[in-house]
Amino acid sequence: MNLLLFRPEETGRPLPARDPRARHLLAVLRRGAGGTFDAGLLNGPRGKGRIESISSDALTLSFRWESDVPSPDPITLIVGLARPQTARDILRDATTLGVAAIHFVATEKSEPSYAQSSLWREGEWERHLLAGAEQAFSTLVPQVTFDQSLETLLAQLPAAHTRIALDNYEAGRGLAGHPIPRDHPLALALGPERGWGACDRVALRGAGFTLTHLGRRVLRLETAAIAALTLTKAARGAL
Amino acid sequence: MNLLLFRPEETGRPLPARDPRARHLLAVLRRGAGGTFDAGLLNGPRGKGRIESISSDALTLSFRWESDVPSPDPITLIVGLARPQTARDILRDATTLGVAAIHFVATEKSEPSYAQSSLWREGEWERHLLAGAEQAFSTLVPQVTFDQSLETLLAQLPAAHTRIALDNYEAGRGLAGHPIPRDHPLALALGPERGWGACDRVALRGAGFTLTHLGRRVLRLETAAIAALTLTKAARGAL
Repeated sequence: MNLLLFRPEETGRPLPARDPRARHLLAVLRRGAGGTFDAGLLNGPRGKGRIESISSDALTLSFRWESDVPSPDPITLIVGLARPQTARDILRDATTLGVAAIHFVATEKSEPSYAQSSLWREGEWERHLLAGAEQAFSTLVPQVTFDQSLETLLAQLPAAHTRIALDNYEAGRGLAGHPIPRDHPLALALGPERGWGACDRVALRGAGFTLTHLGRRVLRLETAAIAALTLTKAARGAL
Repeated sequence: MNLLLFRPEETGRPLPARDPRARHLLAVLRRGAGGTFDAGLLNGPRGKGRIESISSDALTLSFRWESDVPSPDPITLIVGLARPQTARDILRDATTLGVAAIHFVATEKSEPSYAQSSLWREGEWERHLLAGAEQAFSTLVPQVTFDQSLETLLAQLPAAHTRIALDNYEAGRGLAGHPIPRDHPLALALGPERGWGACDRVALRGAGFTLTHLGRRVLRLETAAIAALTLTKAARGAL
């Protein structure tokens, strides 16, 4: 944890000693009463936290926030519903790299049972977003959905988005050579582990997506997500 | 496994039924006698394998190899000795993305005990290379070392290599904006999780490395390795 993130409602009450952030402050950062640490308000400013007092069951904290509130890079990541372990990595790493939204969508070759994973049913997905943001030293956590079909999602995508999909099989050009406007919002779509189906491609092309590839080597989905975000971030001038 | 890899000495003898490749052929690919599959000769050609016969304890296989033998992308990845779980991911993912060599080196802030991990002592590292190559549909497995210091490694680096290091703290420019010649071999260096120390930086600069960064967000080491390889591969025209 490079930065400890707090929800607004958490900043006015003691932090339970069993909370992972409390344990991190005491056991890893070895802070005592009066100690300060880097803190962030979820989707708000960064700042400094201070431990006012420590009791056996809670820490009393105070915060001073910076005036700057960051805004997310307007990138919407669309991913075919993937194996839970793959989805965990993508939630964390895409948040670290910085996106505005991540939508896991049902596609032709998605395995429907993946939607029943505890990752989605029990709210575990939020934990991976927080870990990704804390790693990046950022307060920004993307909007996430996991209950829509590809078609439904595409129908809602705002018109201004540049639209790029990754495809191992039918892409005519590499993503690295594809022009990406710097100042437009961007939608980047990756299929699930087994790739896009024919109807998915019809939907993507119909919605104005260009199919691009990442070279001749077949990457794991979570690796492809990092590589594609890296290239789009670089094209937008962030790296 | 997109491709089953074999060492030359393995192709002339039966494949034990307990070998993971045998189990993959029978249980995942559901091949029977006469069935064919995509095969590769380690650091040699790709081709087709055929199951000639199946007994209770082994498969008898035959192979036909293509005439093309691929050559590795001349990228040398240098990484400060990292946590074993981080090193596992880098071994696999760098092999998937395609490099000629991976050197894990002792640096100022490397934790020496990491060198005692079963990953290195018991040869487990080779398994991650094979998994990475099979994923990429490639036969090419990089040369790997894990017993040198950064200084020793730098002293041996051939003169022709373009030299780029990643650094969160002292880099003057982003990797994405740094010119990378297409046709030169390249050395790309990343520090361990805790970053480079002052003496590491002296050694790197003395050896002609340019320090570059990957933007303002702090990435996990394994994510940074994928991002840096993606940008260098893209600059060299491979993506």
